Amino acid sequence: MKVGFLFTFRVYMNIEDKIYGIRAILEALESNQPVNKVFIQKGISGKLYKELEYVLRKNKTSTSYVPIEKLNKLTPNNHQGAVALISPVNFKNFDDLVEDVLQNVKTPLFLLLDQVTDVRNFGAIIRTAECTGVNAIIIPKTGSAPINSDTIKTSAGAAFNVPITKVDHLKDAIYYLQASDIKIVAATEKGSDTIYGIDLNRGSAIVMGAEDKGISNSVLQLADYRAKLPIAGKIGSLNVSVACGVFLYEVLRQRLD
Amino acid sequence: MKVGFLFTFRVYMNIEDKIYGIRAILEALESNQPVNKVFIQKGISGKLYKELEYVLRKNKTSTSYVPIEKLNKLTPNNHQGAVALISPVNFKNFDDLVEDVLQNVKTPLFLLLDQVTDVRNFGAIIRTAECTGVNAIIIPKTGSAPINSDTIKTSAGAAFNVPITKVDHLKDAIYYLQASDIKIVAATEKGSDTIYGIDLNRGSAIVMGAEDKGISNSVLQLADYRAKLPIAGKIGSLNVSVACGVFLYEVLRQRLD
Repeated sequence: MKVGFLFTFRVYMNIEDKIYGIRAILEALESNQPVNKVFIQKGISGKLYKELEYVLRKNKTSTSYVPIEKLNKLTPNNHQGAVALISPVNFKNFDDLVEDVLQNVKTPLFLLLDQVTDVRNFGAIIRTAECTGVNAIIIPKTGSAPINSDTIKTSAGAAFNVPITKVDHLKDAIYYLQASDIKIVAATEKGSDTIYGIDLNRGSAIVMGAEDKGISNSVLQLADYRAKLPIAGKIGSLNVSVACGVFLYEVLRQRLD
Repeated sequence: MKVGFLFTFRVYMNIEDKIYGIRAILEALESNQPVNKVFIQKGISGKLYKELEYVLRKNKTSTSYVPIEKLNKLTPNNHQGAVALISPVNFKNFDDLVEDVLQNVKTPLFLLLDQVTDVRNFGAIIRTAECTGVNAIIIPKTGSAPINSDTIKTSAGAAFNVPITKVDHLKDAIYYLQASDIKIVAATEKGSDTIYGIDLNRGSAIVMGAEDKGISNSVLQLADYRAKLPIAGKIGSLNVSVACGVFLYEVLRQRLD
């Protein structure tokens, strides 16, 4: 399987843009720019800052309070106490994207990631999603790995080709998909059946969980199926991007028949 | 899928041992210690050094000529111009390991890695091999990623559980396996059939290739099957550890039936 690591590394290395200044960041947020994270100077105050804090909270944007030295390192420009990291990928609106898929794809395939936090795993998963024809990747607004230069690099550029959407709560996305007759298949070692016993030849959404603690219980309880992979060894724990690849390829295999 | 990254990171962080001094390194090599790499001071000469160079070449041990400052950083001790990195994993003898598997396992599963050079990919592959019951991993003596602390960490400790053996040439290993009725299945996007059309319910060896250029042509030509994965997207390139996971799980799936 070809990878082309070195090439993509060079191309995407500095792709995560920065915006600085409170007003500019407010503008970016209000025009729905894909903001990954905002760094704010510790102890800063003022009316404009209060407004920024309100908008960040409303949008559930990841925020970190740091000493001024950290901000000075992020940009040589006059940052006025705030620097935002902008994603190179434009996230889609959930309703628009899902409706578009439901109306135009005969047998949709969705991928939900419940708090996958490692950027290299996230990138490899996006790459596999592209290869297996996933119609949309759905991630929660908080707690996911950011889409930055490392993610894009590991995805071999696939992050530009697979539609990705962020939701406030994965649970709401699951209710929405189930209402449209999409079967929710949660990948969990607590599953009673293996993935091979589940009919994936119909609209399906695969849910993969966090590297350390798997899928959260509230999401697990909503799933139509809790499926595991058979394990022949003693350690019994796969890398999340490898496990995701096996699940997605099982969908592809069943649909080839 | 649980991972336990943080835990294994702490445990295995400093696990790659060092040996210094030409005589000590010679002794390690002659008693078949698993030497990953030897750093030698540039411009060094002398009879003992010539002997070391001869043994390194004979054993095909990875060697690097470096300034004395690099050696001083590797160890605070009197290194006499040579430092060796010792693998935490004891490699098995090829003949012993393969004969043992052939005699005791009804349907053997071997994994051959043709120049997988990224330690994180190598670690994830070892981990998947453990989960899928691979009986032996076979790698070439030169050009493979080393088994160091990062490999062990990414393997979640599986590197201690899956027997690994090094050979001078993968081609010789393939001839040996074929003579014992093991079918060689090369994973390549140049394949004419997908893996799903191949009967894996018999003694098999899966061959995975390098991240950048895939399996070398000479190895490819020896394979009994050249198998690809179906690709639904445009990029058409999977991470090698993800692709390996899909191949190995297809073996497991067929053998479950």
